[in-house]
Amino acid sequence: MRASTNKCGSHAPHMAAEWKNGNCSAWAARDPSGVLSPYKFNRRAVRSSDVSLKITHCGVCYADVIWTQNKFNDSQYPLVPGHEISGVVTEVGSDVKGFKVGDHVGVGTYVNSCRDCENCNSYLEQYCPQRVGTFNRVDTDGTVTKGGYSTHIVVHERYCFKIPDGYPLAKAAPLLCAGITVYTPMVRHNMNQEPGKSLGVIGLGGLGHMAVKFGKAFGLKVTVFSTSESKRDEAINLLGADNFVISSDTQQMESLKNSLHFIVDTASGDHPFDPYLSLLKVGGVMAMVCFPPSGIKVHPASLNIGARTLSGSGVGGTKDIQEMVSFCAANKIYPEIEIIKIDYINEALARLVNRDVKYRFVIDIENSFK
Amino acid sequence: MRASTNKCGSHAPHMAAEWKNGNCSAWAARDPSGVLSPYKFNRRAVRSSDVSLKITHCGVCYADVIWTQNKFNDSQYPLVPGHEISGVVTEVGSDVKGFKVGDHVGVGTYVNSCRDCENCNSYLEQYCPQRVGTFNRVDTDGTVTKGGYSTHIVVHERYCFKIPDGYPLAKAAPLLCAGITVYTPMVRHNMNQEPGKSLGVIGLGGLGHMAVKFGKAFGLKVTVFSTSESKRDEAINLLGADNFVISSDTQQMESLKNSLHFIVDTASGDHPFDPYLSLLKVGGVMAMVCFPPSGIKVHPASLNIGARTLSGSGVGGTKDIQEMVSFCAANKIYPEIEIIKIDYINEALARLVNRDVKYRFVIDIENSFK
Repeated sequence: MRASTNKCGSHAPHMAAEWKNGNCSAWAARDPSGVLSPYKFNRRAVRSSDVSLKITHCGVCYADVIWTQNKFNDSQYPLVPGHEISGVVTEVGSDVKGFKVGDHVGVGTYVNSCRDCENCNSYLEQYCPQRVGTFNRVDTDGTVTKGGYSTHIVVHERYCFKIPDGYPLAKAAPLLCAGITVYTPMVRHNMNQEPGKSLGVIGLGGLGHMAVKFGKAFGLKVTVFSTSESKRDEAINLLGADNFVISSDTQQMESLKNSLHFIVDTASGDHPFDPYLSLLKVGGVMAMVCFPPSGIKVHPASLNIGARTLSGSGVGGTKDIQEMVSFCAANKIYPEIEIIKIDYINEALARLVNRDVKYRFVIDIENSFK
Repeated sequence: MRASTNKCGSHAPHMAAEWKNGNCSAWAARDPSGVLSPYKFNRRAVRSSDVSLKITHCGVCYADVIWTQNKFNDSQYPLVPGHEISGVVTEVGSDVKGFKVGDHVGVGTYVNSCRDCENCNSYLEQYCPQRVGTFNRVDTDGTVTKGGYSTHIVVHERYCFKIPDGYPLAKAAPLLCAGITVYTPMVRHNMNQEPGKSLGVIGLGGLGHMAVKFGKAFGLKVTVFSTSESKRDEAINLLGADNFVISSDTQQMESLKNSLHFIVDTASGDHPFDPYLSLLKVGGVMAMVCFPPSGIKVHPASLNIGARTLSGSGVGGTKDIQEMVSFCAANKIYPEIEIIKIDYINEALARLVNRDVKYRFVIDIENSFK
């Protein structure tokens, strides 16, 4: 990780020379230190199928840490992160059918795809080979995409989602990545069709706490697995989980063997898989949305004896995103958030790395750039 | 492996003293050398729900090697292996409804279960905690089960399957383990519902060659992955595969990326999983029926990027077994077998270890004990 050698605290005061002209104000990382500071650049003019939105809020995702700090060695600086975007439509292109000025909308982790391949035609745009991520990716016009730590964004309407009136825009932001990332595999594996069944949720961060909320909304009996006793009270009393288990408690783990129909694994760090797979009933499904750095190791018997399934998933397609946002509004499902201003972002990212957030930071963009 | 220190070739001639009285003639292993020799023991009298069958044929499964050689350290000698059994009903208990004397029947890998748990009630008896394997397992009456390398067997009718008239009993035997082991996950993952889709089969032994035959019967386009060029001709011309790929040919593997809807993995040795998972289309399923000794290692991206699934399976439940046998008869699906007599079994097991069999040994029990 190169970041460690370059980390020098917030150097925003020294960055004045890098402020450039442009129609969009933002905060950007300039190097692998990952430190963010003010920045300006130009967003494109609205094309016929585009929607332009004034960004009011942007959630803070661990992806923002990964790319501001160049952990995948593909960061292009200045880098404006942020892919949990909510805001208000300010302009629409001549061909736009789904949105009008004033609509509340969201933008998630991608802003383009080919719209013509097998995956796009199945509304699985997130797996389109030409999918363009919301930041740090080269768009079809050759520009490098810049994310939601900025005052406005212009996207093709296909990658824009209606946020129903009355749903708080601050709460809507985390739905666009954290929410959809757990919603998609849960629905794909029919967890929304089998009320009364039992769900395990591994990890209780931005993703995990949404999995608990969806689980309860789907009528499931939810057990949270965490490494930290400190999360017990909120898991039960705030999020509504039915059961809370410290995953290192082998006795409690043993007592749950063959008891769960589903597991959603959101744990970002390295962790064993066999102990969790053994908690699944015959035919049970462990849906994984995490990227443990050292990979996945599984004993064949953990899958074969009991016909168990380990299944991966990444964010969600455009149809699923709209369905999930509407579902959250209809069922009053709201992420738990801590609202910050943009000038707190460097501290917030450090706290995120230390897992010191309940459960998602959301930047109040609208009031940060006044 | 203790066997290696004890291996001394066939010592059948020295075993005369171990011939005991009993109503059932068999061949048994006496120690971890795994060498089999003649043996006699008593089968129980037929109970009210039992079926007794004269065994005509028994398939030779790798499980027979594992337990005759005590590879799992739980072998109980004398050990009579064999769990791919076919034969003719000679007696039925007073409460038996499904069978009559003269019926052609099969018995597979288990001969008892509790018949009262969630799994038994779902016809997933193979995962019943009280399931009793066909050999080397303690039955509810305290006896150690003895398998199909013997002249007759007595089982509760639930674990007995009708073999339609006209289906050769020699060919039926391998259906009861090899056949059902690949059929179950294929059907569970809807491979029989989507003709025209593409299936990969890894490994071309007893299980793999049946997966190819089922795949073709289901209308799938079948690609075989093998380490051995020598299998190409038969894969294509005998088994009907559409494509044959040497798995070490990285160029050919690369060209197949994102092309398969399903994979059935039957490779018994250690092998990588990521290269195969990358061949799956978005949402593709790799159904695993193998137990690679060093376990399974997977990069999270191999599952997450593309919503891919790795799913395990073990043999099949009683309903599935009967359905599979009937499907094979209706669709004229026959395992490829090499028929042997029981006195060739030690050589056959040695050849099986060396993968020198096309594709399943079947012991002609009826003509071996005359």
